Amino acid sequence: MTALADALSALDYAAVAVFGATGALAAARRKHDIVTFGFFAAVTGVGGGTLRDLLIGAPVFWVGRPTYLAVTLAAAIAVWIFGWGRWRERILTWLDALGMAAYAIVGTLKALSFGVPPFSAIVMGVLTSTFGGIIRDVLAEEPSVLLKREIYVSAALVGATAFVGLRLADLAILPASLAGAALAFATRAGAIIFRWSLPGFPGRAPQQGPN
Amino acid sequence: MTALADALSALDYAAVAVFGATGALAAARRKHDIVTFGFFAAVTGVGGGTLRDLLIGAPVFWVGRPTYLAVTLAAAIAVWIFGWGRWRERILTWLDALGMAAYAIVGTLKALSFGVPPFSAIVMGVLTSTFGGIIRDVLAEEPSVLLKREIYVSAALVGATAFVGLRLADLAILPASLAGAALAFATRAGAIIFRWSLPGFPGRAPQQGPN
Amino acid sequence: MTALADALSALDYAAVAVFGATGALAAARRKHDIVTFGFFAAVTGVGGGTLRDLLIGAPVFWVGRPTYLAVTLAAAIAVWIFGWGRWRERILTWLDALGMAAYAIVGTLKALSFGVPPFSAIVMGVLTSTFGGIIRDVLAEEPSVLLKREIYVSAALVGATAFVGLRLADLAILPASLAGAALAFATRAGAIIFRWSLPGFPGRAPQQGPN
Repeated sequence: MTALADALSALDYAAVAVFGATGALAAARRKHDIVTFGFFAAVTGVGGGTLRDLLIGAPVFWVGRPTYLAVTLAAAIAVWIFGWGRWRERILTWLDALGMAAYAIVGTLKALSFGVPPFSAIVMGVLTSTFGGIIRDVLAEEPSVLLKREIYVSAALVGATAFVGLRLADLAILPASLAGAALAFATRAGAIIFRWSLPGFPGRAPQQGPN
Repeated sequence: MTALADALSALDYAAVAVFGATGALAAARRKHDIVTFGFFAAVTGVGGGTLRDLLIGAPVFWVGRPTYLAVTLAAAIAVWIFGWGRWRERILTWLDALGMAAYAIVGTLKALSFGVPPFSAIVMGVLTSTFGGIIRDVLAEEPSVLLKREIYVSAALVGATAFVGLRLADLAILPASLAGAALAFATRAGAIIFRWSLPGFPGRAPQQGPN
Repeated sequence: MTALADALSALDYAAVAVFGATGALAAARRKHDIVTFGFFAAVTGVGGGTLRDLLIGAPVFWVGRPTYLAVTLAAAIAVWIFGWGRWRERILTWLDALGMAAYAIVGTLKALSFGVPPFSAIVMGVLTSTFGGIIRDVLAEEPSVLLKREIYVSAALVGATAFVGLRLADLAILPASLAGAALAFATRAGAIIFRWSLPGFPGRAPQQGPN
């Protein structure tokens, strides 16, 4: 189990760093200063996991272990220093897909370990892997993944659901995690390469809502 | 008390469903895909109660009982399938008014039962019944009820205040709840039918703020 | 210690009132009604401290002591009644700087007293003093301080860092607090008077992000 715990922990930091870098990228796009870089990197890096921990009643993971914040700040500084070329963006898209896949599983697993029912645990996995980016987009006043009809939330959902299904079928944590993460990543990869998207609402759309 | 508890529970699910449907509606307006429908329905349906539970230190109500999420997803699917005609929107406006009235009381009651002082309990009632819609509007990039000068937050405020006042005057829970909810609903109904609105700030308005 | 506690408590209420007034100002700018005034004042006044308390696992400070909410509502009513002249805005800019400086220290101190590690405690101080304003701007659909490249978050950061540094160097709470708050205030004052700003990201900025 120690090797697994170590692997999970490494994945965890890697995902925080990657998400942090996407936050710094949002800041770079608008030519923000280094403090805003740090703020966006931190919010994006730890935002999803923070919401998950608040919802399941766990101590918020980064408060007692500030290394997580340090990692997001390092990501912000790296983006600041190395700038942002076209190829770096392609790399980040793929790292982000990896981070999303890892987080969908890590988030679901943590929720299950806190006694959260399977269905809610899937939601926690999806939130962990997507909410940081959603807060980033709201703060940066950019259209969020929610509004883009891209396969992103769906990929996290597919991976977390598969993971929970395999766990309910009594598969061990390690293979179930790998299968779930692989499925999430493959779904996202297909969306990136083949520009998959889900069909939009086919019905008549009203212009004014109920309130 | 069991009949009351059952009635409250039924109201609770009904309100979650209605709010979920208004979330799906926001997604429909922009032709989003089914996953975003579900996301918006869930956030709108349980968002207000989630904030309330975090603030009063209660376990978040839907995490341990995922039926609530299932109800919001059912609402999302219903909106997707049955589409959105003009008359359905009218129905939803009224259901939303009912949901708001119910939630203002349910939220206040829960806060009181957690030992929250009356004034804060009123705020919890207002948050429970309005915050889901506010998050929905921020995420959907639509002007929120806050920015529309409609009588909505005010109706929840009036109902929750009346409920707390009646409880402080030692009225039993059931009649106090009914009176509070009726007042909230009547206020909202008046706003819908007669287009009531509060007067806006009459003073000179600055263009630039302090920071 | 009682004098210190009293002074801190007075500062606390003063900061909540000032932040509340900036929230009401945001409502005034758009000619909102009195209920929205109150909502914005409350969210801005207690928002930062609320997030801090949720993150460090403390009971949310205003829920059990509703005087805080009453203070924000009083601020909202004051802005409504006295309107908003040019000179009042100047006063508020400076009061806001004082509030920010006070809150950066109060937030850090509270986090430290809950056993939060120094680095995270600094982040809590920064969040306490800036997040209320950020939520206000998101809800009011105005560009937040985050997006303005003004020295604001940075001033809180400088003050909180100095405070933690002095505490780690075993300085007593009172002088460390005063020094930290003075530094935060001086930094912000310089930014207001001399229009200091941090340099923006110098690199090439991409137009499209990774997701």
